Amino acid sequence: MLNERLDRATSSVLLRAMGGVDAPKKLAKALEYAVTPGGARIRPTILLSVAMACGDDRPALADAAAVALELIHCASLVHDDLPCFDDADHRRGKATVHRAYSEPLAVLTGDSLIVLAFDVLAEAAGKDADRALQMIRVLARRTGMPEGICAGQGWESEAQVNLSAYHRAKTGALFIAATQMGALAAGQEAEPWEELGARIGEAFQVADDLRDSLYDAETLGKPVGQDAAHGRPNAVTALGVQGAIRRLKDILGGAIASIPSCQGEAMLADMVRRYAERMTPVAPTLRQAAARH
Amino acid sequence: MLNERLDRATSSVLLRAMGGVDAPKKLAKALEYAVTPGGARIRPTILLSVAMACGDDRPALADAAAVALELIHCASLVHDDLPCFDDADHRRGKATVHRAYSEPLAVLTGDSLIVLAFDVLAEAAGKDADRALQMIRVLARRTGMPEGICAGQGWESEAQVNLSAYHRAKTGALFIAATQMGALAAGQEAEPWEELGARIGEAFQVADDLRDSLYDAETLGKPVGQDAAHGRPNAVTALGVQGAIRRLKDILGGAIASIPSCQGEAMLADMVRRYAERMTPVAPTLRQAAARH
Repeated sequence: MLNERLDRATSSVLLRAMGGVDAPKKLAKALEYAVTPGGARIRPTILLSVAMACGDDRPALADAAAVALELIHCASLVHDDLPCFDDADHRRGKATVHRAYSEPLAVLTGDSLIVLAFDVLAEAAGKDADRALQMIRVLARRTGMPEGICAGQGWESEAQVNLSAYHRAKTGALFIAATQMGALAAGQEAEPWEELGARIGEAFQVADDLRDSLYDAETLGKPVGQDAAHGRPNAVTALGVQGAIRRLKDILGGAIASIPSCQGEAMLADMVRRYAERMTPVAPTLRQAAARH
Repeated sequence: MLNERLDRATSSVLLRAMGGVDAPKKLAKALEYAVTPGGARIRPTILLSVAMACGDDRPALADAAAVALELIHCASLVHDDLPCFDDADHRRGKATVHRAYSEPLAVLTGDSLIVLAFDVLAEAAGKDADRALQMIRVLARRTGMPEGICAGQGWESEAQVNLSAYHRAKTGALFIAATQMGALAAGQEAEPWEELGARIGEAFQVADDLRDSLYDAETLGKPVGQDAAHGRPNAVTALGVQGAIRRLKDILGGAIASIPSCQGEAMLADMVRRYAERMTPVAPTLRQAAARH
């Protein structure tokens, strides 16, 4: 059901951005290519779940927030895949945007998606101008400098890395945006929701480190061993596989404990538990990985 | 006086975006490098002039709009200079951002400046939420797809170019944003101000074509002959030097005629006349150019 909400909201936003005969066709198609079919859409799903847990009294505003967040996430993937960053050929099981279109069109796709994200929020404001403006501020803070995902990528150009600032910005930021924008869309305060987002973000970072170490490229649909290849910090390198799995469980326990009191508190705790199951490598994968390494 | 307003407003926004010890230092410095010292700052100056012509009853909102517009302009220059676009080594008499820092940091600088522009508008909203939201929508429309400067760049990847859509998006868009955001900041409607922005944009396009054909790289502080090198349309190629100068004068006459009735109408007409003088190549330059060509 959440996926249908997201699909519908995303399609109408994309259609408008792609324009008609007076728009450059390749860039229009590249926008669609970068956004659909979606990936796991974890961030917008968390956002809508929090909005529903808080009563979801303005579903159109929550939908807009979910789409805006996913657009920013897609923009970051398109730019991160560029030759000057990860130089990735594949993403979500298909060619990356700069491979399928071109490098200039990939830069412009990312730029256009960032702009579109903020436009979607402003457009949805209606009579809830203050909620929309607060969501724009949260999204900007978690996307740009000094503590959003741009800052996270920026840390990778530094000789001395502040590891906690790096992880919080690189992986945590958009999860914090998810929980806070979900709450704001439903008329709640943003601040109490920061910790849940931050902890889900940490958990995904550790899960991603596990996948990067344990899985093969075919299973993942993208290159593996990228952290080692780019000299990036990785929880498995630091803690070992079993240590990283224990760390993942601790973080998710903390996430559940941090959920602010609201009518959908139990539903949210269930959601985090389901993510925990999906994120934790199952025993056969671990045995195969042990045999490979 | 306008320059001082702009400097003050820009500095405080930049300082916040650069962050403290928890921000990546190189990216922070690259943001500052991309924005200061400013270039001619024509777009924010037009914006503030229109706001003042309309009464400027919310100077803080007009300042925020001017800064946001200049940030978008700077972001577009940083991305346009990238190796996959113009591959420019110099801009405003110094090394381009990707030459001075790196290509990854140049991509992130552009991204961060786009995000910052929308944050500045949302932050300045105060009690004027509706004005701020309208300005965000105008800025998004003139920056992204399908008709903003991203679309303008996107046309350069098309085999068949819609020339009027191309020029309107590539050069006109941010001038339309300037006049419309200036009016909105002062509580006026945006729509009547579109034509003035579009015509000033056209004039700058023709003036730019003249400069690209007539001046040398040292005078311009950036490479010349770029249109010919990249096979881009150019008014001088189409109309000749004297034809392009006549066209420039016609457009500026139309710009003055289009100024909506407001208390500062005469002041705005003077502003356009001053730009006209600055934009039109003077006789000695034309004689030198004739001798060179």
